[in-house]
Amino acid sequence: VAVIGLGLVGGSLARRLAAGGARVLGSDLDPACVAAATREGVLDGLVEADGAADHPVDVVVLAVPVDRAPAVLAGLPPFLAEAPLITDAGSTKARICAASESLGLATRFVGAHPLAGDHRAGWAASRPDLFADAPVFLTPARDATPEALRRAHAFWQSVGGRPVVMAPEEHDRRLAWSSHLPQLVSTTLALTLLEAGVGREALGPGGRSMTRLAGSEPAMWAAIFLENREPLAAACAVMAARLDRMALAIENADASQLLSILTEARDWAGCDAG
Amino acid sequence: VAVIGLGLVGGSLARRLAAGGARVLGSDLDPACVAAATREGVLDGLVEADGAADHPVDVVVLAVPVDRAPAVLAGLPPFLAEAPLITDAGSTKARICAASESLGLATRFVGAHPLAGDHRAGWAASRPDLFADAPVFLTPARDATPEALRRAHAFWQSVGGRPVVMAPEEHDRRLAWSSHLPQLVSTTLALTLLEAGVGREALGPGGRSMTRLAGSEPAMWAAIFLENREPLAAACAVMAARLDRMALAIENADASQLLSILTEARDWAGCDAG
Repeated sequence: VAVIGLGLVGGSLARRLAAGGARVLGSDLDPACVAAATREGVLDGLVEADGAADHPVDVVVLAVPVDRAPAVLAGLPPFLAEAPLITDAGSTKARICAASESLGLATRFVGAHPLAGDHRAGWAASRPDLFADAPVFLTPARDATPEALRRAHAFWQSVGGRPVVMAPEEHDRRLAWSSHLPQLVSTTLALTLLEAGVGREALGPGGRSMTRLAGSEPAMWAAIFLENREPLAAACAVMAARLDRMALAIENADASQLLSILTEARDWAGCDAG
Repeated sequence: VAVIGLGLVGGSLARRLAAGGARVLGSDLDPACVAAATREGVLDGLVEADGAADHPVDVVVLAVPVDRAPAVLAGLPPFLAEAPLITDAGSTKARICAASESLGLATRFVGAHPLAGDHRAGWAASRPDLFADAPVFLTPARDATPEALRRAHAFWQSVGGRPVVMAPEEHDRRLAWSSHLPQLVSTTLALTLLEAGVGREALGPGGRSMTRLAGSEPAMWAAIFLENREPLAAACAVMAARLDRMALAIENADASQLLSILTEARDWAGCDAG
């Protein structure tokens, strides 16, 4: 398996694969990451542009920011571009799947998005159990073969994930709500508190949990937000309108409306929400 | 110590006090709570309207919803109303402090708000270490004596809290931002996802942490929101405007603005934010 990008997701994949006995090749723009991964015995070798592997490569995984992924895919050295499965781990799927098509890699490309990770980033935060029981959305390119999809399913299952297949566009539309919006809300809450002069140390456990995601890697999320901008801007506008209505209900001291709203949200969340 | 209300906060206080060797009297509207607290050996006796304690009561703590607290304070049986310290644990402080003044209890009333707890509620969720290292805002009534404040300080410190003294109005204004807004945002995010047809099970770890508070007790929070409605509605409107601007930056694909906004939020949150 060749893992390109050894951050939180790529690093965790490499660790899990190595722990399972796979031979893992890796690369990262940051030489310190590669050195650490090699020193810790996770990598068997490096991905080099003009090199080839001693053994055939079964799976290539791109674990790089979504705005860089198409260029990385385009620049894959031939011994990797020929692998029977090319997959990725980005949070948006339409653009990378389209790129695989225009590059003629679509028969063997199955996009993936493991719903795992947290606000931390980098090799230092990676851990072999990151994908344990995590949903992994699989978005085959339009021309992907059943064989490629079967391999993607088996691969992501082998690292602990629970594969769920869907179309790339449907994935991006859904994730705008379920993942990108919560991330954006955490950031916006952080900015609102900053504007009000409230430091994070003044928050209780609830406020801290609501602003933890705001500590995520800015460049990675800026790229995701931009790539998924239409559905995300729409979701964001719905949330803003809801907040305005909430402000109004509070200002009007509309107790019964407020109680019914809070009850609706609680019922959705479940009172023993974990 | 007499603890009135044996939910998450009152129950945790009673457990901590009993574990520390204090004699604890308790009461709750729910007889099952009182029975459980007695059975578990936490309570030494009940607070009864026409009763008196075998020993003088040093501290009375109201741990009831903020909308009920003034009536509970007004209805304290004489043997409790005479205690040298009356305190509470509500999330808003102006109204209960004003009530203590109009009831002639202000010399011995020091409001308190321990910044602890989570989305769970009730005796079943209570635990003796709830206040460990938690900030506890102390808001003395205007006529509270230095002796009462000293007692309040020592009392909340004895259960593990870190007392911070401030005026009731300042407390409410600050907490609108640092506590009530994050709570409201979690609820609003839950309602937005509900509207979009997204279930909580579809969320990743980040989305789950952002909607955990939405599972809190509706009546308790409706009362807090209403009691602190002016500062909270203002905070909520600022957040809504920020979200609108965020939607615009995303729609306009303004990459440099977006990156600088996300970086500002990340710097505020700290990248290793716990």
